[in-house]
Amino acid sequence: MEAKREKVPVAVLGATGAVGQRFVQLLSDHPWFRISALAASEQSAGKTYKESCAWLMSTPLPDEAAELVVRPAEPDLEAKIVFSALPAELAQKVEPDFAATGYLVCSNSSAYRMEPDVPLIIPEVNAEHLRMLEKQKKSRGWEGGLVTSPNCTTTGVALAMKPIDDAFGIRKVIAVSMQAVSGAGYPGLPYLDIQDNVIPFIAGEEEKIEQESRLLLGKIRGDSRVAADFQISAQSNRVPVSNGHTVCLSIELGRKPSIDEVLEQLHAFRGPVIEPALPSMPAVPLVVAEEPDRPQPRRDRDAGDGMQVTVGRVRACPVLDIRLVACVHNTVRGAAGGAILNAELLVGQGYLDS
Amino acid sequence: MEAKREKVPVAVLGATGAVGQRFVQLLSDHPWFRISALAASEQSAGKTYKESCAWLMSTPLPDEAAELVVRPAEPDLEAKIVFSALPAELAQKVEPDFAATGYLVCSNSSAYRMEPDVPLIIPEVNAEHLRMLEKQKKSRGWEGGLVTSPNCTTTGVALAMKPIDDAFGIRKVIAVSMQAVSGAGYPGLPYLDIQDNVIPFIAGEEEKIEQESRLLLGKIRGDSRVAADFQISAQSNRVPVSNGHTVCLSIELGRKPSIDEVLEQLHAFRGPVIEPALPSMPAVPLVVAEEPDRPQPRRDRDAGDGMQVTVGRVRACPVLDIRLVACVHNTVRGAAGGAILNAELLVGQGYLDS
Amino acid sequence: MEAKREKVPVAVLGATGAVGQRFVQLLSDHPWFRISALAASEQSAGKTYKESCAWLMSTPLPDEAAELVVRPAEPDLEAKIVFSALPAELAQKVEPDFAATGYLVCSNSSAYRMEPDVPLIIPEVNAEHLRMLEKQKKSRGWEGGLVTSPNCTTTGVALAMKPIDDAFGIRKVIAVSMQAVSGAGYPGLPYLDIQDNVIPFIAGEEEKIEQESRLLLGKIRGDSRVAADFQISAQSNRVPVSNGHTVCLSIELGRKPSIDEVLEQLHAFRGPVIEPALPSMPAVPLVVAEEPDRPQPRRDRDAGDGMQVTVGRVRACPVLDIRLVACVHNTVRGAAGGAILNAELLVGQGYLDS
Amino acid sequence: MEAKREKVPVAVLGATGAVGQRFVQLLSDHPWFRISALAASEQSAGKTYKESCAWLMSTPLPDEAAELVVRPAEPDLEAKIVFSALPAELAQKVEPDFAATGYLVCSNSSAYRMEPDVPLIIPEVNAEHLRMLEKQKKSRGWEGGLVTSPNCTTTGVALAMKPIDDAFGIRKVIAVSMQAVSGAGYPGLPYLDIQDNVIPFIAGEEEKIEQESRLLLGKIRGDSRVAADFQISAQSNRVPVSNGHTVCLSIELGRKPSIDEVLEQLHAFRGPVIEPALPSMPAVPLVVAEEPDRPQPRRDRDAGDGMQVTVGRVRACPVLDIRLVACVHNTVRGAAGGAILNAELLVGQGYLDS
Repeated sequence: MEAKREKVPVAVLGATGAVGQRFVQLLSDHPWFRISALAASEQSAGKTYKESCAWLMSTPLPDEAAELVVRPAEPDLEAKIVFSALPAELAQKVEPDFAATGYLVCSNSSAYRMEPDVPLIIPEVNAEHLRMLEKQKKSRGWEGGLVTSPNCTTTGVALAMKPIDDAFGIRKVIAVSMQAVSGAGYPGLPYLDIQDNVIPFIAGEEEKIEQESRLLLGKIRGDSRVAADFQISAQSNRVPVSNGHTVCLSIELGRKPSIDEVLEQLHAFRGPVIEPALPSMPAVPLVVAEEPDRPQPRRDRDAGDGMQVTVGRVRACPVLDIRLVACVHNTVRGAAGGAILNAELLVGQGYLDS
Repeated sequence: MEAKREKVPVAVLGATGAVGQRFVQLLSDHPWFRISALAASEQSAGKTYKESCAWLMSTPLPDEAAELVVRPAEPDLEAKIVFSALPAELAQKVEPDFAATGYLVCSNSSAYRMEPDVPLIIPEVNAEHLRMLEKQKKSRGWEGGLVTSPNCTTTGVALAMKPIDDAFGIRKVIAVSMQAVSGAGYPGLPYLDIQDNVIPFIAGEEEKIEQESRLLLGKIRGDSRVAADFQISAQSNRVPVSNGHTVCLSIELGRKPSIDEVLEQLHAFRGPVIEPALPSMPAVPLVVAEEPDRPQPRRDRDAGDGMQVTVGRVRACPVLDIRLVACVHNTVRGAAGGAILNAELLVGQGYLDS
Repeated sequence: MEAKREKVPVAVLGATGAVGQRFVQLLSDHPWFRISALAASEQSAGKTYKESCAWLMSTPLPDEAAELVVRPAEPDLEAKIVFSALPAELAQKVEPDFAATGYLVCSNSSAYRMEPDVPLIIPEVNAEHLRMLEKQKKSRGWEGGLVTSPNCTTTGVALAMKPIDDAFGIRKVIAVSMQAVSGAGYPGLPYLDIQDNVIPFIAGEEEKIEQESRLLLGKIRGDSRVAADFQISAQSNRVPVSNGHTVCLSIELGRKPSIDEVLEQLHAFRGPVIEPALPSMPAVPLVVAEEPDRPQPRRDRDAGDGMQVTVGRVRACPVLDIRLVACVHNTVRGAAGGAILNAELLVGQGYLDS
Repeated sequence: MEAKREKVPVAVLGATGAVGQRFVQLLSDHPWFRISALAASEQSAGKTYKESCAWLMSTPLPDEAAELVVRPAEPDLEAKIVFSALPAELAQKVEPDFAATGYLVCSNSSAYRMEPDVPLIIPEVNAEHLRMLEKQKKSRGWEGGLVTSPNCTTTGVALAMKPIDDAFGIRKVIAVSMQAVSGAGYPGLPYLDIQDNVIPFIAGEEEKIEQESRLLLGKIRGDSRVAADFQISAQSNRVPVSNGHTVCLSIELGRKPSIDEVLEQLHAFRGPVIEPALPSMPAVPLVVAEEPDRPQPRRDRDAGDGMQVTVGRVRACPVLDIRLVACVHNTVRGAAGGAILNAELLVGQGYLDS
């Protein structure tokens, strides 16, 4: 991408929610994108963004967004790329409308993640799955396209698993997550429910982790994706943490490495070489914590401005082969940041101009 | 035990700490025991209990303890049973002195749990392991005896596993715990370290869970204990919860039951018939939560006055056979309450008079 | 009240909310009352109480309430006394219907607290204001009656002020409160808003404290209440505490006592002699904390089963005359417990039979 | 200060504590200063900073500090300016040694704040008090000098009061603070003490607020400071907040303005013109929040990178004249950032070269 290219106008659907706000925060001063439209539910439409949104981020509401008049989520927005932070039910209705009329939709919703012609992408893990867009174009006849980013927890799990799977072949995974409250959106959980508590259940979460991780580590054959065939069990818990999901993993491998060999692969992991470099992609996707008591969400969620996943406590497992802990910023890398990175990949790979 | 028998005088070692306070709270108005002495470190000795202790419990400091003068932890206390809430290093030195001179020591410390002649007991799980005291008497020549109660997390895990192991034979276990801050004692973790955070490491905890659970579910042969031979992996996390440890379990079984059969065993579990009934033993050791999002530490830790373990989310595991979640009050059933229950078992079985 | 009198059937309006649940908890096993009906909004009506209510209390949902079918809040309930935990707007419509048709309504709502013919009562402070019921009967023509209990914060403030006002004459009060999240009901505040935060605003709260405290400390002349005429400024803050409101008070007095004289009055305070004794009334309304860092909500809210107010840090004020800190359990003494105590007063004083 | 001037070498005393770490964070990449030495207690001395310090900040430990070998706090450090984050007792001994031997000491400690020849400075409030250094030089004979910054809460209070006092004359103040846990340093408060709690006492804090605020708003006559003579009452509370102190103020004024006039003064406040501009000084010292429920520590503490104080809820007081709420980042503006700003003032005003 040449330096002087004009910034691409982008819209955010569901802009007033917790993930929508994160999109607005991360898109402010973005080197490739400028926010040209914000859409939300009918109660918000017509008000300025500042009026309609209870701003939760720790940085101030960006000036470039504050006075934008919120629009309904309909495909007449002045934008080329549309980021969707819509709830799944709404996304299912709205996202195809945008894709059909020429927008590139980068969705953080779960509505279309499992579709065989919709790429589910983490650039460092499976950028090549973008080829599924050809199939999508054929099957759907859309002028634009739809690319999804995975569930927040899955994002951390898949990034941590990728170099291990590549090197040693993952056969079985048991994943137990401790997830931040922001993952449930805003208003989300009442203080009276989650303070001083653990809630060992998040509706639909375990299924998403189990299904999506197999897609992400799957192979592409032509324009079709073949899911990976490891066994995976996910158990999801909500804990009183504001941001940052932590996951304990036990993994059985095809080849039995030493712990040092595993650490070596985690340290060496860079993902594929992507040209041009994507502005939101960290040089190193995984931070390998040395301290015995890391990663911790409060201390590690902001690594790489929230785009790096931190892993640690890599050690032998008495039941499967290895154990480790991974931590991911759920609303940055695991949501808005992941979808923005996908949009950068689309732009960088020329999909905007096609 | 006849109704009119005089209350047994008992002492608490380490009485000013978090578990020591729980002992004092639970022993207040105990039907069989009366607090006759409290011992703590040299800084406390000589002061009244009220002066020397930053009382943390939610009920008031019991009058019967407030004015007791704290003594050093030396075996000249006026008591027949001694509860030890000492740190392991100190317990290792002090507990044998008490056992040797005739006291029955019910220890919550980890110092002697792994010894082949020291019973590690949860009455509902392995009351018959008390027979190891015969071996202890022979090998140590003590006039009294030493009985230990397990690690807090292990207590919950072992109670949840017992009926499953009995019915279906446990082969492999992966346990991931989310543990309350009170488990680290007082002052324990700084607010600045644990608020809005998860710390995925607790020194020594994982080894205790792995080792002790095999002892608890082991068999007794004559006066010797044979550990169970399942494989177990434990991963321990500290979470911002005041009391109540939550554990996610994945279990592989010898016989493959339906989930309904597992639930049936959990519901039916009563532990052995113990005569006379022990005052701190709940009629039903396990509560089986029906709600899909239970057990939760804040809502379930106080079940049965903190002596019941709550299990829930029993479901199939795509990797091993079944998954479930267990929750235990770590300083009641998992510490002071467990040791008191062991003392009741000793008294009920006549060990005090032998 | 003779020992063998049958228990009075009572109903709770708004039974599924946070205060409604507290009513149900406190009325379970009440010596004078039995829960005969539970009413809530139309979504709940027709379901059992257990089904319709997300139980928040730390004790189990009482059996006597679990299977009651929730009714609409209409004056055809089988009950003599009705406790209202309705929101103010609804209370305004519904409570007169009940009072008109013969029920004694003990309301925790703010709807009618300021009415000149509706007693606003804390028995230890102004039991004699019950005489306003005569005026109410005349002016409204109701067959039953309506008695209100004050705002949660006001309850703590008024109880702390009462002995000071009686002895020294209060002229000015500046009150700054730090209020628990449960005061906002359920679901109440989102975790994302209040964790790691203070919110220095609670709609309507400051006005309630300022107005109600003058009524509570007012005098009764015949059947009319004359408000006290001190000046009062209230500033209300929400803090991340589950239960227990804490208030810092600075007070100017008519007569200038020493701090010891103030302490003496606080220690000596007993409220009026009420015969028969009311089961929920603590023998001593105020606990005077000796420690320099008390009262604290977590350690003091449960004093007297939540019915005692704890005061401490009584010291000179460089601007007004004295300063002190008061702590009150906002959903027990400050809400359901206060209303139940008022009902006991009504029964004890014979209003049920009149 | 010319652009090309070399950065001034600075040292931090007490560098491993909570405030010391904040100094290191804020001095990293400082335009005028470079960290040349870090000093701490004897246990730390000899280790690298990284080894000796449990890093608490949310940004990574700066590379320029990580490998510095920690030195004892003795006046042989390679530095011209010394920032002191020492506890008061130690500061009392050590700071004069540094000042005597030629260092400019910018202290955050309370040890010398009340001395009549030691300036207590907030540049926007009383930069002209620096003239006290002349008196200090005469009376102490030091080659260097000692300047102090106020207590964290006082800093917020004094900045909020300054424009009000200038315009209307403050006569009486009642200040009730809700203070963050980081104000107690590290490890500071145990989680078990402060979670779900308010502690209405902080040793020495109320006296500091009362005394220091009168010095800060005092006048300078020649090289002597005359304290302001308003009456002030402070009540300090610890709340479960990580960073950011919130203070509720009631103020009596000499002239009685409308609320709009007060707001106008708060909006217009800029502090004195200081040349050259100080890099850490915000263009606007006070943010006036418009929302009725602000300031809030989590949402406002980071305003102006933690150097702005946010005020809000300006309204009439029924007892004194006006009420408002102020919020200050206690470890940035209220501690390390305040001391660094003072050092910038010293450098900018030429004290380094004198």
